[in-house]
Amino acid sequence: MKCSTLGIGLAGVGTVGSGVILALRRNGDLIRDRTGGAVDMQVTKALVRDLSKPRAVALPQEVLTTDWKELVADPSVDIVVELIGGTTDAFEIVAAALKAGKPVVTGNKALLAERGVELFALSKEHDTPIHFEAAVAGGIPIIKTVQESFIGNRIHSMSGIINGTSNYILERMTTAGLDFETALGEAQQLGYAEADPALDVNGWDAAHKAILLATLAYGFPIDPAMVHVAGIEQVRPIDIDFATRLGYVVKLLAVVREHPNGAVELRVQPSFIPKSHILASVNGVFNAVAVHGDAAGESLFYGRGAGQDPTASSVVADLVEAARSLRQATGHRGFLPYRESGQLLPIENTETASYVRFDVTDRPGVVAEIATELAKEGIGISGTHSPVNPESPDADFVDMVFLLHTCSFGKLQATLDRIEQLDCVNSSPVVFRIEKL
Amino acid sequence: MKCSTLGIGLAGVGTVGSGVILALRRNGDLIRDRTGGAVDMQVTKALVRDLSKPRAVALPQEVLTTDWKELVADPSVDIVVELIGGTTDAFEIVAAALKAGKPVVTGNKALLAERGVELFALSKEHDTPIHFEAAVAGGIPIIKTVQESFIGNRIHSMSGIINGTSNYILERMTTAGLDFETALGEAQQLGYAEADPALDVNGWDAAHKAILLATLAYGFPIDPAMVHVAGIEQVRPIDIDFATRLGYVVKLLAVVREHPNGAVELRVQPSFIPKSHILASVNGVFNAVAVHGDAAGESLFYGRGAGQDPTASSVVADLVEAARSLRQATGHRGFLPYRESGQLLPIENTETASYVRFDVTDRPGVVAEIATELAKEGIGISGTHSPVNPESPDADFVDMVFLLHTCSFGKLQATLDRIEQLDCVNSSPVVFRIEKL
Ligand SMILES: NC(=O)c1ccc[n+]([C@@H]2O[C@H](COP(=O)([O-])OP(=O)(O)OC[C@H]3O[C@@H](n4cnc5c(N)ncnc54)[C@H](OP(=O)(O)O)[C@@H]3O)[C@@H](O)[C@H]2O)c1
Ligand SMILES: NC(=O)c1ccc[n+]([C@@H]2O[C@H](COP(=O)([O-])OP(=O)(O)OC[C@H]3O[C@@H](n4cnc5c(N)ncnc54)[C@H](OP(=O)(O)O)[C@@H]3O)[C@@H](O)[C@H]2O)c1
Repeated sequence: MKCSTLGIGLAGVGTVGSGVILALRRNGDLIRDRTGGAVDMQVTKALVRDLSKPRAVALPQEVLTTDWKELVADPSVDIVVELIGGTTDAFEIVAAALKAGKPVVTGNKALLAERGVELFALSKEHDTPIHFEAAVAGGIPIIKTVQESFIGNRIHSMSGIINGTSNYILERMTTAGLDFETALGEAQQLGYAEADPALDVNGWDAAHKAILLATLAYGFPIDPAMVHVAGIEQVRPIDIDFATRLGYVVKLLAVVREHPNGAVELRVQPSFIPKSHILASVNGVFNAVAVHGDAAGESLFYGRGAGQDPTASSVVADLVEAARSLRQATGHRGFLPYRESGQLLPIENTETASYVRFDVTDRPGVVAEIATELAKEGIGISGTHSPVNPESPDADFVDMVFLLHTCSFGKLQATLDRIEQLDCVNSSPVVFRIEKL
Repeated sequence: MKCSTLGIGLAGVGTVGSGVILALRRNGDLIRDRTGGAVDMQVTKALVRDLSKPRAVALPQEVLTTDWKELVADPSVDIVVELIGGTTDAFEIVAAALKAGKPVVTGNKALLAERGVELFALSKEHDTPIHFEAAVAGGIPIIKTVQESFIGNRIHSMSGIINGTSNYILERMTTAGLDFETALGEAQQLGYAEADPALDVNGWDAAHKAILLATLAYGFPIDPAMVHVAGIEQVRPIDIDFATRLGYVVKLLAVVREHPNGAVELRVQPSFIPKSHILASVNGVFNAVAVHGDAAGESLFYGRGAGQDPTASSVVADLVEAARSLRQATGHRGFLPYRESGQLLPIENTETASYVRFDVTDRPGVVAEIATELAKEGIGISGTHSPVNPESPDADFVDMVFLLHTCSFGKLQATLDRIEQLDCVNSSPVVFRIEKL
């Protein structure tokens, strides 16, 4: 198996670009293991605007350049990652990489929604892929899902909350009663909104993503000018109040739906959605996309929609895809298991709180006897309960329930084994875990 | 580009096998388009037990066989799909296919959890992949997500509801107050439970799936005998009552978690989970897996966990992967767009109910004037509302809200344009959609 290092040309060392470097440093070994040693990646060239800017994530000075042509042309660069944003320089970089036969990974939804048709044509012409998982819904693998996992499905619809900033603003308006401007200010201060938050709040960031999803699902080029987009600037506290009282939640929703005649509905608008719908519980900077396929049925994909690490997670996954496409000889998905051995935690050492039900003979002192055994082992009790059967309040056999504080399963089992020996206890106690999650 | 037909050897034409045939018939053209014409698949051989059994999904008699060796050896078979179940014949079939260098697609979690180590070794030895998306969580692409999309993540934990039958039973016990036996009978009658529901209710079906997820995430072989598994047979109405009163929901939960020392916790047990957690809302035969990766953060994947079509959806996706691995020359993920043109539905023709806010001058007759315009166009009103400002109850300018029945956006806009001309209306009305979803 070939395992020379693959060189990455990283255009952009900002939020996401830095995250990619960190993820490769942190988990490079893991990736090598998981690909059976086939994929070993190194940033060999990195494009920035300002060479002298102090950077949290350091790169050797000779790796940095301000000349994108140099980055793309560098013979050490096998794959080009575009993370500078915008639709001008970014376009040139992606086009040049494709022409040079270097696979491209990008997180730039504006670029692909606005100028994707030209770039995808170049991709085809030069038989060189463009990967763009990071462009839609940050860390959620929705691109791969629609493009690969649902490839055998006619997609009936996709509805999504795919702009975290506007979702955060709407949530704050709803739960804290803020007005739009205050909530936006908060989002900016927390670093959620872009420096220029226009695309976040006017709906166009979500629209770019929806256009990409629709192109994947229906396969034809979509002119952004034909898409109906409304943002959240017009949402006022009175609207939120009204929605709440009627059982709705206000969300910026992207809707993509195929009609029986084949026409595709595609729009982004503030929408009232029923509070009981799962999308209504998607809060803060989280994103979610509900997909309805003719075979898969209804499904939902939920996760972090943006941010350094989640977005880097998607870029890295695409890098591995790109690397595989350059190393076709190796087994496609890696083989399992990829290490010889590992350690399972003995069940005795796992810890949760727990619910225990005892089948006891009802007589004075039962609770005390059981509680004494638990106390001996230092297992705390947060509640006990013994339901009375209204039809036979003096029944001899009853269920008695204990809620116990977190302790190891091993200690719990040993204690319960002893409790089972008490003559007031008639059978093995039943234990359910209380999960923190 | 090469586009000869790929032959599928389909071992098993039961629930899932029939679903695969149907999906290929229904969406074969779509798959061909989406893969740029590269993937065209045909069932050329099919294994059954009983040749004379009447089948809802017909296959030519010469395609059918009862001899698995014939199926694997047939020169027309390029890919072998194992959907017979069990761990004996299924093992022989998968092993023989791998030895013959024919990629395998299977939905058999019992086989892979119990005998995966041997089969994965054969896969590696013969450089031939085993695909098994259908083995875990039916139509949810959780295998691809963990194996590919999260390849750059250290997986902190995965918690899942991954047996639909037991989830259905627990839900019915919770919402309809049924006891275990009655709920199980209902699940069997609805065709959710297997003929022998033992693996569903004793937790082992979920455990097999959890073992596969853990192997993907941590990469070492796991001995099923070392895994702690408890089923739902011991759950009684009293437990459900108690959980409900405390704000919990009882679920059969699979928990996989890496501890700081590298040891992996792996268990399947009935668990109390907080009602507010998103996993608590996973009802009926749906499945969900919450994954926490070091880069991606928290995410959740939700969908149909079993059934003919969802499971077939995953098998078909794997078939396309397998086909691609045999046709390495073609662009890996297909190129976009894959058709020249398509039709966007004009926004005027989209239909939902809506919420409209008017900024009006408050005087008698305003509601009537607006309502009259709406009535002229036949747009129904389900509610109107004009909040009083307690600090200036006689204010001149107020917000007036209308909830309108479903009508086309075009008609609504035209009507609102006219309403905007009324001299009691001071600015453009604000419209939000009320989505059905
Ligand atoms: N941030 C997110 O959470 C997120 C999520 C999904 C997708 N994305 C997408 O990912 C891309 C990057 O976003 P980001 O947040 O990482 O941006 P960012 O923090 O602003 O970083 C941009 C980087 O690109 C460099 N750069 C910008 N324009 C350049 C030019 N013309 N020539 C050379 N270098 C240039 C900058 O150089 P200097 O360092 O010298 O200034 C900086 O290193 C965008 O397309 C964005 O839409 C971002
Ligand atoms: N059903 C689901 O929702 C689901 C979901 C995920 C995964 N799975 C997995 O998919 C697999 C198939 O499940 P299924 O529900 O489709 O099963 P099924 O309906 O019972 O179908 C089994 C098929 O295999 C044939 N078969 C069984 N044993 C055979 C043998 N020894 N030799 C030759 N043919 C044999 C049967 O032949 P006859 O038709 O002649 O009887 C039948 O066509 C199982 O591993 C299951 O765990 C199922």
